[in-house]
Amino acid sequence: MSKVAVLGAGSWGTALSIVLADNGHDVRLWTHRADQADTINSTHKNEKYLEIMIPKQIKAYDDLAKAVEDVSAVVVVVPSSAIRDVCAKLNNYISSNITIVHASKGIEPESLKRISEMMSEEMSNYLYEDIVVLSGPSHAEEVGKRQPTTVTVSSLNENNAEIIQDLFINEAFRVYTSPDILGVELGGALKNIIALGAGISDGLGYGDNAKAALITRGLAEIARLGTSLGANPLTFLGLPGVGDLIVTCTSVHSRNWRAGNLLGKGRKLEEVLDQMGMVVEGVRTTKAAHQFAEKQQIEMPITKGLYNILFEDEKPKTVVDQLMSRSKREEMDDLAELLSKKYS
Amino acid sequence: MSKVAVLGAGSWGTALSIVLADNGHDVRLWTHRADQADTINSTHKNEKYLEIMIPKQIKAYDDLAKAVEDVSAVVVVVPSSAIRDVCAKLNNYISSNITIVHASKGIEPESLKRISEMMSEEMSNYLYEDIVVLSGPSHAEEVGKRQPTTVTVSSLNENNAEIIQDLFINEAFRVYTSPDILGVELGGALKNIIALGAGISDGLGYGDNAKAALITRGLAEIARLGTSLGANPLTFLGLPGVGDLIVTCTSVHSRNWRAGNLLGKGRKLEEVLDQMGMVVEGVRTTKAAHQFAEKQQIEMPITKGLYNILFEDEKPKTVVDQLMSRSKREEMDDLAELLSKKYS
Repeated sequence: MSKVAVLGAGSWGTALSIVLADNGHDVRLWTHRADQADTINSTHKNEKYLEIMIPKQIKAYDDLAKAVEDVSAVVVVVPSSAIRDVCAKLNNYISSNITIVHASKGIEPESLKRISEMMSEEMSNYLYEDIVVLSGPSHAEEVGKRQPTTVTVSSLNENNAEIIQDLFINEAFRVYTSPDILGVELGGALKNIIALGAGISDGLGYGDNAKAALITRGLAEIARLGTSLGANPLTFLGLPGVGDLIVTCTSVHSRNWRAGNLLGKGRKLEEVLDQMGMVVEGVRTTKAAHQFAEKQQIEMPITKGLYNILFEDEKPKTVVDQLMSRSKREEMDDLAELLSKKYS
Repeated sequence: MSKVAVLGAGSWGTALSIVLADNGHDVRLWTHRADQADTINSTHKNEKYLEIMIPKQIKAYDDLAKAVEDVSAVVVVVPSSAIRDVCAKLNNYISSNITIVHASKGIEPESLKRISEMMSEEMSNYLYEDIVVLSGPSHAEEVGKRQPTTVTVSSLNENNAEIIQDLFINEAFRVYTSPDILGVELGGALKNIIALGAGISDGLGYGDNAKAALITRGLAEIARLGTSLGANPLTFLGLPGVGDLIVTCTSVHSRNWRAGNLLGKGRKLEEVLDQMGMVVEGVRTTKAAHQFAEKQQIEMPITKGLYNILFEDEKPKTVVDQLMSRSKREEMDDLAELLSKKYS
C-alpha cells in the first residue's frame, strides 16, 4: 500500500483516485477549491464531474502541502492551462525520490510545449526524464464504474513507468508500458482536434462513413506531425493513438466531440464553451497544432480547417465539404513515405 | 456514359447502383430472384435491403445474360458464398475487354482464398491481375442517401483501377486508389471478425473503453495476418483498415456488430443468424481466419476467442474477460516487429 496524491478533482482525477483506492492505496485528492474538498469529504460525491460514489478511503484536500506530505507518488490531472501554476507550487514540497505521473492532455500554444516539458520547466527539484505520462482510451465515467479499460504509461525512466504501472494495474484497469513518451503525449493531445472535427461532422448531419474517413485521415495527420517531432509512428497505431481516437470520436461521453457537435449545429464557439462549463482541451490544442504545422511546414488540412472554424469564423459546412472533396489520388501516400523513412 | 451491370441486389449492390445512376450511367441490377427484379422495376424500391427510392434509370434483371449484354463494366456484389457460382455463369458472357470490380467481403474457409482469387478460378476468360476490388468505410444506407463517403479501389492493373475510380467518383462518393489488392481485400474481410467481437463486448454491457481496446488490438491482429501473407501493413492504417474497422465496429447499421451484440446478450448463433435474415460474413470469415492463423502460425487471440464462441460453445463473457486480462507488457511489440521487418 502506498500514499498517493492526485492533483485535480475533475472527472479524470476522480476516476483515477477510485482505481488507486480499489488497489488499496491511501489516496489524497487535491482541488484548489475548498468547497469542493468539503463536499467530497462529507458526501463522498463529486457530482458535477462523476456520478459515482467515491470510496471513503479517498480524502480530499485543498491544501497542496498537506495533500503531498509523505506520499510516494503524485498524479497530476489538472487542465493543461493550469499545469505550470500547480507544478510551480508542487516544486516546493517534492524531492526526486517520489514518482510523478501526469494524465493531462494538451499542448501549450506559442511555446508548443508538451505537458511533461511544461512540468519539468516549473519543477527545478525534479528531472524531466523521470516524469511519467498515463494516456489511452478511457472515459472517466466508465473507469469509475470499473468497466474494462486499457491505458499506456510511458517515461524515459523505465523503472518509474513500471512503478506507475504497478500502482494502477488491476483486473478492470489494464496498464501497458511504452518507451515513446513523445508519441504517447502527442497522441493524447492531438486526438482532441480530430474529436472536435468528428463532432462537427455529426452536428452537420453527416453519417458514420464521413466520420470514419475524417478519423482515418486525422490519424495520418497526427502521425505526420508526431513523427516530424521525433515520435515513433507506431505509437499512433496503439492505445494512445487509434484507441484514444476511436473512443473520443465515437462517444457522446467525450467533451471535445460534444463541443464539436454544437459547433456543427451552428452554435458559436463562445456559447459552446459557456454551455460546456468544463475545459475543452481540443480548442487550445487546435491553436497549438496549427502553429506547430506552420513551423514544421507539415500539411495538416483537418487541423487547419478546424482552426479556421474556431478562430477565423469559417462555416463548418464549407470546411467539412472542402475536406471531403480533396482531389482523387493514391491513399496513404504521406504515411507510407513517413514510415519508410523511419525504417530505412 | 457507360453501360454497367451490378450483380447482387442486396443493400450494398443497390447502393452502388445508385452511385452509378447518379453519375449518368446506364445501370442493370441483377438478382437471381425474379420476384425481386419485378418489384424493383415496378415500385423502384428494394425495401428489405435499403429504404430509399431507386432512380428509374436502374433496371433490374433476373437474366444474367441480358444484364451483362454490351456492358463495359461489371460490379460483383454477391455474398462470398455465392461468388463461385455467379462467376462461373458470368464467364460464359464476358471477355477480357470489360472491366470487372467486386465489392464483396470475405475469405473462403478451407481453401483460404480471397474473393478475387475465387473469381479468377471460375472465370477462364478473364485474368486475375485485371480484377479490381472496391472497399472502405461505407454503410450502404448512407451511400444511398448521398452522405459523404470515401472508398479505395485496388488492382494489379492500375489502368483498370482508374477506370473504376472514374466510373464511381462524384461529390459525395470519393474514390482513392491503392496498389495493394491483397491488403485491401483482407482488411475488408477481416474487419468483420473484430466487428463481431465489438458487438459481443457491447452486448455484454462493457463500455467504449473496452471496445476501443478490442478494436485497437484487433487492428494489430489483422495487420499481423495480412502482412504474413504479403500485404502492405500501411493498408491497414487507411480507409480499408482503420476506417472500415471504425465504421463497422461503432455503428448499429453494421450487421456483424448486430449479430455480435445478440451473441453477447446470450443468444445462440443459430437463433442470431435466423433473426438477422441477411448474410453475416464475419461468421464465415472467423472460421477462415482461424484456419489461416493456425496454418501461418500467427498469434490471433481475438479471432481465436471468437472462433471458440461461435463454433466451440464457449461463453462470450469468459472469452472477453480473458482477452482483457492478458499479462502486462509493452504495447505494440508485434506490430513494431512486423513493420521493422517490412522496412528493413
